[in-house]
Formats: sequence, structure tokens, C-alpha cells
Amino acid sequence: MTVLVVGSVALDSVETPFGAADGVIGGSATFFASAASPFTPVRLVGIVGEDYPVEKLEPLAARGVDLSGLERAPGASFRWAGRYSHDLNTAETLDTQLGVFAQFHPKIPESFRRTPFVFLANIDPRVQLDVLDQMESPRLVACDTMNFWIASRRAELLTLLGRVDLVTLNDGEARQLSERVNLVHAARWILDRGPRHVVIKKGEHGAFLFTRRAESGADVAIFFAPAYPLEEIFDPTGAGDSFAGGFMGHLAATGDLSPANLRRAVVIGSAMGSFAVERFSNERLLEITPADIARRVAEFRSLVALEDAAPDGSGS
Amino acid sequence: MTVLVVGSVALDSVETPFGAADGVIGGSATFFASAASPFTPVRLVGIVGEDYPVEKLEPLAARGVDLSGLERAPGASFRWAGRYSHDLNTAETLDTQLGVFAQFHPKIPESFRRTPFVFLANIDPRVQLDVLDQMESPRLVACDTMNFWIASRRAELLTLLGRVDLVTLNDGEARQLSERVNLVHAARWILDRGPRHVVIKKGEHGAFLFTRRAESGADVAIFFAPAYPLEEIFDPTGAGDSFAGGFMGHLAATGDLSPANLRRAVVIGSAMGSFAVERFSNERLLEITPADIARRVAEFRSLVALEDAAPDGSGS
Repeated sequence: MTVLVVGSVALDSVETPFGAADGVIGGSATFFASAASPFTPVRLVGIVGEDYPVEKLEPLAARGVDLSGLERAPGASFRWAGRYSHDLNTAETLDTQLGVFAQFHPKIPESFRRTPFVFLANIDPRVQLDVLDQMESPRLVACDTMNFWIASRRAELLTLLGRVDLVTLNDGEARQLSERVNLVHAARWILDRGPRHVVIKKGEHGAFLFTRRAESGADVAIFFAPAYPLEEIFDPTGAGDSFAGGFMGHLAATGDLSPANLRRAVVIGSAMGSFAVERFSNERLLEITPADIARRVAEFRSLVALEDAAPDGSGS
Repeated sequence: MTVLVVGSVALDSVETPFGAADGVIGGSATFFASAASPFTPVRLVGIVGEDYPVEKLEPLAARGVDLSGLERAPGASFRWAGRYSHDLNTAETLDTQLGVFAQFHPKIPESFRRTPFVFLANIDPRVQLDVLDQMESPRLVACDTMNFWIASRRAELLTLLGRVDLVTLNDGEARQLSERVNLVHAARWILDRGPRHVVIKKGEHGAFLFTRRAESGADVAIFFAPAYPLEEIFDPTGAGDSFAGGFMGHLAATGDLSPANLRRAVVIGSAMGSFAVERFSNERLLEITPADIARRVAEFRSLVALEDAAPDGSGS
């Protein structure tokens, strides 16, 4: 099945302790599509300015990302500049130029409106709600958000929570939204607002999936997937959206919304996030093969397996 | 088999957002013994002053902790006072009074010298080395340490690393010791100094076990156990030593040093650490039953299992 993503398509300038990249392709929808497209066809809705090097999105089109919903508008593209110090967990934003993204009023193409899996990437909740109004009976709707919207669009965000099946956010955002320090309390608070599932991402510390076990019950199932302890983290930009891409891509590809498959999707999302950070931009996501993905997913599972699956059999 | 612990027996005064406890029993050896004794007989070597309420250690003796190596010396007992704010990960030390602990020169009782499993809790590496000199062919020696010794007794600590099988430390200490930011690099650096295993504890973010796969090979196996997402963390004091107690207690009880059993020991250590933080002092550790432990260990495993083991069967 197909997945639709609505979000930003940007130009990033990133400095890390390992190097710098200037004006490379970025944005939540771009990372999502790069990570979802190995699994399933992707439809992308976004906006770029006249300055955007759209030819750099061609590898995405070649991988089955339908870019016909990418609007090109007069003006400048969304540009983000950030810096990571040796603590790669948090970016210091150096500059944000919204450009045409400030006037993003997505019009979902007629041919996209029945897409069964929908990911509303981190944009104004008013825009997320507007997109949802344009969709026709989606099977699973997930949304992301950020501290800025939690503070400035709280009412609209709470309305949105009542209309989505799943929300992804990081631990700080979950605490800010729920005003609960304890992550289990935060997750329960969010689940009580409507979603059946909440994914709380903790960056290098892994990700939780909280699921209401019964529609009306208070009981919550908790799944945890560690982040793989990478030896080289090159550029953390896009890890969260790549997680979401792998997660939603796997769900859409299988069409299976069982608890076990949701958990598998968290592991696959974690694997895609771990690839994203190995290079600048979406470079690594565009070069990996299905075998690379399968190997990384197996490494994730072996990390929590009681038996050491030594590749050379010398495990004891 | 029996496990020996050498470390502090203290009186703690703790403030948390949930309450305060004054002069309760604490110390690394106390927490270790409390967490190990459900699994196996424990021998404790430590020192207290004349002011110590030794009758409060009676529940430990009743659980199979041999306290005949607990020296009582003229002077005051080791006292620690600390405070946790809403971020329960780090304690603010308000006061440390070493008392008789400053002159702790442990003499291992003759009857303790052949104990097969040895845990050198966080004390001066010179003292840890001195204890090791008194032991006769132990089967597994593990040690803990802290930032203070890494900075002030680096040479002695490196000597110690060459003589132990396993070291436990937290992520910050692993980075400080190895001067490596990346935890995999830090673990490799430590393994290159001698130990076959290193456990890196990340508090609420879980624990890693790194193991050299072959005696001389460079290949490292990585296991990860999440911390259980507790809804109520009451007092984090002693979590690390309780982890070590569960870990070593299980290894000593089974006598099985296979990779799979080491991994199981990490899960059991994590379970015991999660109990320790549910109450002040070692209160919770002293009241739990084998059934409580088995249930918590099962919860830890279900956290990373792809199948949701819903207690009521309503998992789908």
C-alpha cells in the first residue's frame, strides 16, 4: 500500500565535528520519503522555491516517490542551518529561513486523497488538520510535532491528537506536551487524548512504542527498541523523520497493523534512523540496499537477544 | 556459589521530590548484598563506626549475608547526604563524611579468601588491588569505580583493569576513563586494558554489556538491556550497586559464565536496580519475593519482544 507524507522540503547547511555540508537537500518530507521508499510507494506533498535544485530529488523519483504534489512557488526555499557539537544529540540552530514554506497551504492532489497511510510531518497543526480534512478514509494517520507548536498551537494540536491513530515525538516534546516528567505518565496522557499509539523517540537512547491494549481500557503495552550503538555518527539531521519513514513504510508495505508488526516497524524505523546519521543529508539512505537494511535490522534484534549470534561462530 | 563484596556500609540522608529519609542504611556493599542475596550466599567486607545501627543489618543476615567481615571501628560511620531534583538521573551531593571509611584497609577473613565470585565496589583502586592480593584464585572478579578515582588514581585503576574480568561503570565514567566520546569506542578502549567484559550503565536509559568474542580478537559482542520505564521512581540511590548485586548474584548462583547467561545476568541486574529505586534505602529490595523478581524479569524481556504478551490476552 502507498504512504503519503506532507512536510518540508528544505536546503540544509550543517556543521558537525566531522565536517560541513552547505545547501544539501533536507526537510522532514525528504528524509521520510528517502527512508520509506525502499519499502513502499511514497507520495510527497511539499513546497520549494524557484532556487531549489529539484534535479537532486530525481533519485527519490527513481525509487518510487511520486513528486507530483511538490509545489514550486516564486520565492526562496526553506533553508535551515545548524551545528552539532560533540554531543550529537542536540542541534544548535544557526539560522532558519522559512521562505515559501511560510505560505505552505498544501492542496492534496485528487489522485492522492485516498492514500491509505498518511504521515503529517512536523508542520503547523492547523496545516496538519487542513490536510486531514482533504483525505478520504485513510487507514492509519500518524503525525509528528515539535516544541514550537506545542507552545504556540496547543489547542489545534490537541484537536489533531483526537483525529490521528499515532503520534511520534521525542522525550522532551512528550514531557512538554503532557506536562508530565515521567515518560509512562506522559504517554498515558497523550493516549488519553485520542491516539491508539504513541512513539517516544529518545535519540541515541532508543524509542518507546506505547499502545492502548483495548479501545477503552486503561492498560498500556510498552515496547522498546534500542538505538544501535554506532561507532560513527556523522550527522544526526533527519534521524527522526527517517525513523518515521521506515516505520510507516514497513506498515504500508505489509498492510499489517497487528501489535507484533507495529513493534517490528519500530525496529525498522530505528534501523533507518541509524543509516540516516551515517552521512550528510539523505546520502546514505539513497545508497543502501535491501540486504543492508536486513543486516541492520538483524543487528538491532541481536542487541537484545540473549544468545550471542557471533558472525564467526566464536561466541562462547 | 558464593559472592564476596567489599565496599562501603554507610548512613544516607536523601531528599527527593517525593520525600526525605535521614540516616537510613546505605553504601555500595549494602545495596549489593541486598540485591545479590535473593540469588546466592553473600559475604560482606566493610567498616562501620560505633554509631552504626548494626541491628538494621539483621534482615540482611537473615537473608544469607555473612557479616563476619564487617569491621566495627572507633569513630563515626561513613555518612552521605544527597538531593535529587525532578531529573532523577543525577544526585547533588550535599555532604560526605568519610569517618572510619577513610581508614578502611580491608582484611579479608581467612574463610572468605577462596570465594569464587568477587565484587570490588567503588573504593580507592589501591584498596581494590589490596583486596585482590588477598584472594585465592577467584573465578570471576568484577569492579566498579567512579569519576573521583578515574581522575585521582588513574595509574592504579589501569593496573586493576588488567587484573579483573569485568568492570561496571556508567556512561560518563566510561567516557572519562577512555577519553572517548563514543560509547563503543570507550568500551573497546577499556576491553583493550584487560577485562573480558564491560558493563556500561546509562541509568534510566538501560545498560550495555560489551564482550570480547575471542581472547585476542578485536571483535566485540554487544548486548543491551533497557531500564524498565517505571511509573514511580522514588529514590535512585543504590541503583547501580543493586544492578551489580543482581548481576553477580545470578552468575554466582548459576556458576554459568556463558555469553547467554552473562546477558541474562544483565537483565536480572536491571530488574534489581529497578526495585531499588522504588523506595528509600534498601527497603524495597528487602521485601520483594522470588515471584516479584520473576515477574519483573519477564516484564523486562517483554519490553523488547516483538509479540505483545498482554496479561489479559487482549493484545490484538
